[in-house]
Amino acid sequence: MYKLVLIRHGESTWNLANRFTGWTDVDLTPTGVAQATQAGQLLKDGGYDFDIAYTSVLTRAIRTLDLALDAMGRRWLPTVKHWRLNERHYGALQGLNKAETAKEYGDAQVLVWRRSYDTPPPPLAPTDPRSERGDPRYAKLAPEEVPLTECLKDTVARVLPLWSESIAPAIRSGKRVVIAAHGNSIRALVKYLDGISDQDIVELNIPNGIPLVYELDDNLRPIRHYYLGDAQAAQAAAAAVASQGKT
Amino acid sequence: MYKLVLIRHGESTWNLANRFTGWTDVDLTPTGVAQATQAGQLLKDGGYDFDIAYTSVLTRAIRTLDLALDAMGRRWLPTVKHWRLNERHYGALQGLNKAETAKEYGDAQVLVWRRSYDTPPPPLAPTDPRSERGDPRYAKLAPEEVPLTECLKDTVARVLPLWSESIAPAIRSGKRVVIAAHGNSIRALVKYLDGISDQDIVELNIPNGIPLVYELDDNLRPIRHYYLGDAQAAQAAAAAVASQGKT
Repeated sequence: MYKLVLIRHGESTWNLANRFTGWTDVDLTPTGVAQATQAGQLLKDGGYDFDIAYTSVLTRAIRTLDLALDAMGRRWLPTVKHWRLNERHYGALQGLNKAETAKEYGDAQVLVWRRSYDTPPPPLAPTDPRSERGDPRYAKLAPEEVPLTECLKDTVARVLPLWSESIAPAIRSGKRVVIAAHGNSIRALVKYLDGISDQDIVELNIPNGIPLVYELDDNLRPIRHYYLGDAQAAQAAAAAVASQGKT
Repeated sequence: MYKLVLIRHGESTWNLANRFTGWTDVDLTPTGVAQATQAGQLLKDGGYDFDIAYTSVLTRAIRTLDLALDAMGRRWLPTVKHWRLNERHYGALQGLNKAETAKEYGDAQVLVWRRSYDTPPPPLAPTDPRSERGDPRYAKLAPEEVPLTECLKDTVARVLPLWSESIAPAIRSGKRVVIAAHGNSIRALVKYLDGISDQDIVELNIPNGIPLVYELDDNLRPIRHYYLGDAQAAQAAAAAVASQGKT
């Protein structure tokens, strides 16, 4: 049996400000820093250890990983920072306040943009100063690989190649893997692993900074999964995520 | 012309306590944290940018790198953490106070252990609790690859394969490289690059947390090198390193 641990980054400044973040590279709040350290402490106390870590190229996820590894005395672990683990791109909503957007467009429209499986928000113009197409961290990608918006279906499509080409082979080779990523890149992985339908994934929320453990069989099919630490706290945190986009 | 930047980690707790550190995994002091951030700021202000970073598997070097990258907005850079960039192993001296050791054995003997090119300090016993042979970060190495002591000649011998197999090819391929490492792993690289004799390397000291820039020609032979920032401060810091092992 294999174990895979997923961690959504701790609270970010734009989680706190209730703004759509997407690929915008905002940092953790002090609460987010504490959540990340606590995640590492939970892993250490639970006897978890790892051979390799994966994270995105966004600071809030990288810092969450490193703070958790610090708490475990594992800062030296080899780490892959990959754009395919980035948050879902939020298109023209990036930077906007979630509640104000809901006021302007209505809760229903915002829920569609936030949670519909295959309806992306309006795209950024490639010339929009918010577009990441000039960002050096994506310089080696083809322009069309740097999204201007994404629905979760798009996120699934760009996360899964990293799973099948790098993460799954690492797990099969016996490496113990931890992934520090984002609400929607983790939802993409969880949807794939658990075979969740396009409809049901809408209701699934991932809390910040709480390690989510997947036990996988020899074929990397999930046996069960659970959050470390206080189960009620994890549920409450996930519910808080769900209510962010309401007026 | 290529540019390569070397950074010795910021002040560590055992630099401050004047203890022989070697492979012992101690962290930065608040001064060391500030030095690392300042190093990143100097690089940013100087218009430096990188495509890949190398560091050791010791926390003080990794953290120095990450703090410098934070200051540059480059935390997302791909990073190789490799044991071959570790500090020189200090054998049975690891953990001992440098001044007390000098009192006990004499300045001359300590200078030999600190700076002789080919006389290592007395080795750790493999069963010594200070030995790193049970440390999981070295689990994949052959036992004999995990040193029990090293002279600088030994350090050169284990640093250079990483240079020739990974760092030099990266530079030749056009990647801009930064290396955050340790006093003696950087001396090893500098000795090789500048062709410094076994005698003269004894007098070379690397200050903490000041970026050292090497300009290299097409064959990776040095054209010139210089510290960023205040040249006098760099010189004074290097002199302070030289005097650490005196009574």
